[in-house]
Amino acid sequence: MTMKALVYTGTQEVEYRDENKPVPGPNQALIEVAATAICGSDMHAYHGLDERRVPPLILGHEVAGKLVSGADHLMDQQVVINPLMTCGHCSPCMSGRANLCSKREIIGMRLAGAYAQFLVIDEANLLIPPPNVEPWVACLTEPTATGLHAVALVERISYRPLSEQRCLVIGGGAIGLLTALILSAKGCSHIDLAETNALRRKTVEQQAVARVFDPSADAVPDVRGYDVVFDCVGAGVTRAMASAQVVAGGILSHVGLQNSDEGLDMRRITLQEVTLLGNYCYTPADMQAALDMLANKRLGDLKWVQVRPLSEGAQAFSDLHHGRAAAAKIVLQPDNHL
Amino acid sequence: MTMKALVYTGTQEVEYRDENKPVPGPNQALIEVAATAICGSDMHAYHGLDERRVPPLILGHEVAGKLVSGADHLMDQQVVINPLMTCGHCSPCMSGRANLCSKREIIGMRLAGAYAQFLVIDEANLLIPPPNVEPWVACLTEPTATGLHAVALVERISYRPLSEQRCLVIGGGAIGLLTALILSAKGCSHIDLAETNALRRKTVEQQAVARVFDPSADAVPDVRGYDVVFDCVGAGVTRAMASAQVVAGGILSHVGLQNSDEGLDMRRITLQEVTLLGNYCYTPADMQAALDMLANKRLGDLKWVQVRPLSEGAQAFSDLHHGRAAAAKIVLQPDNHL
Repeated sequence: MTMKALVYTGTQEVEYRDENKPVPGPNQALIEVAATAICGSDMHAYHGLDERRVPPLILGHEVAGKLVSGADHLMDQQVVINPLMTCGHCSPCMSGRANLCSKREIIGMRLAGAYAQFLVIDEANLLIPPPNVEPWVACLTEPTATGLHAVALVERISYRPLSEQRCLVIGGGAIGLLTALILSAKGCSHIDLAETNALRRKTVEQQAVARVFDPSADAVPDVRGYDVVFDCVGAGVTRAMASAQVVAGGILSHVGLQNSDEGLDMRRITLQEVTLLGNYCYTPADMQAALDMLANKRLGDLKWVQVRPLSEGAQAFSDLHHGRAAAAKIVLQPDNHL
Repeated sequence: MTMKALVYTGTQEVEYRDENKPVPGPNQALIEVAATAICGSDMHAYHGLDERRVPPLILGHEVAGKLVSGADHLMDQQVVINPLMTCGHCSPCMSGRANLCSKREIIGMRLAGAYAQFLVIDEANLLIPPPNVEPWVACLTEPTATGLHAVALVERISYRPLSEQRCLVIGGGAIGLLTALILSAKGCSHIDLAETNALRRKTVEQQAVARVFDPSADAVPDVRGYDVVFDCVGAGVTRAMASAQVVAGGILSHVGLQNSDEGLDMRRITLQEVTLLGNYCYTPADMQAALDMLANKRLGDLKWVQVRPLSEGAQAFSDLHHGRAAAAKIVLQPDNHL
């Protein structure tokens, strides 16, 4: 049995072609993909910069669909997939921090991903959305959970409620934008967002939850600095900016990981007692909370999402690569689901 | 009026000489010094490496003594000094985090320090030790508070109780040793301590609270890594070690600040979701808790402390500089107090 899939075949190459339909193993489910979104990490692979993602590979891990075999009690249900598979019984898994499981495995990295008509996932990794959630919305659960996890880690250790804090978000891609939307939904009224790309700035501005500025041209809007800085880029230059802009005793949430260049100001981090939070993915609880936020329409009009056919995925990757996509997020839908 | 003081006069030079006796301003107290200890930051200045400490300067900020004028209700009382003077009404001060006050000022940096017969301090910065605490013990309150603050920040954000955690302390100077002693006093039973200097290793070993090893010769004792790593050195090489040894989801407490060299592994910090805690000094609550620990003899026999006359301070600095001092801490006492 074959299916259509978008396969990463080499640097800046993805190909829409026939692939073998996957076969679920024990305690696994077969999902018919309804919608799957392109993540920055998929672009990173496409650029040939992710040594963990070796072509040929079906990328993709932001996905909603329908259960077609396995997990029989959920047969034919709409599902959202938690793409991070974990062992379920190690110390991090037992303590609700499954994202730190040493056996964690995200689809679309070593295992086949979601840019296809079908995919296989552990039964434990299925979430059930309410009936009113369309697949293109449901597949945003994963990136939403990434932003929500970062915000939740900050909330857990903050001295004052999040709603009182001045926040700076660096990066206006999907994660930066979602982080700003989540902060706003949680009552933050002071959110500034730095983005160098004019198309992205416009997209974020339209959501009207943050003051958006170009850090390559303008100073940060608030000279007092920020209680929390979310670095949703994670490059040397953004770590330097984050180090400089976080207030004494503040929190630097390190969400992105574009490179490992020097940039962090260890002297300032130490003498001003900054807390730096590393972030990796999300916990199962974050996935559920993110799905709830989307289902309850807490994150605005989502007009920054564009839906395209899976068969035209190569064009989508190329547009993202050349900075021609104003949309913060492109969702691919298998052609029979459009 | 003059007094005897040990004055930092230039790189690797301190001179015991007559200085003007200081005069307290409004809301300040004059303290007759009974005991004052040498800190790593004083050594850093002595090495000519601290641009904030400009000679000629009376160094020193770890100090106990007797109140001789100002704060009349405490006249003739034994006191311990919190050397970190703060404004008392800014947001950090109001929230119990006075160590982050933007107007903070530690004595022995820009203002005259404690290596003298007398010093001036804000009245708000006096603590009263119980009568049984000798001055050479009481003057350890400040470095104890530094270790205690680092441990307290870790405890505040830990997912599990400190007593369950595997801890690695990097550096067996006074702060590293005190951190290990504090961890032990709080119920930690799994403490490993890395120190390259053989004299210091022996000193720490005698306290019998940690497995001590030489990281330049031997691997870390626990191959599983550590839930919490206290970097009490703060150099590129120790940050690299700390990054490598902290477990997924663990805490890297950055206590020392020897240099700002690269070393932190941002990739691991991010993908393994490590929390990095910057540390600066201590809060007033930490000072009180540290004094209580010392007064209640919770930190062992303190045999790692050596008392010398202030008049022989130059020799003490030289011995520390050449690594000839086995003592983790040298306390100087004005000659009339010996």
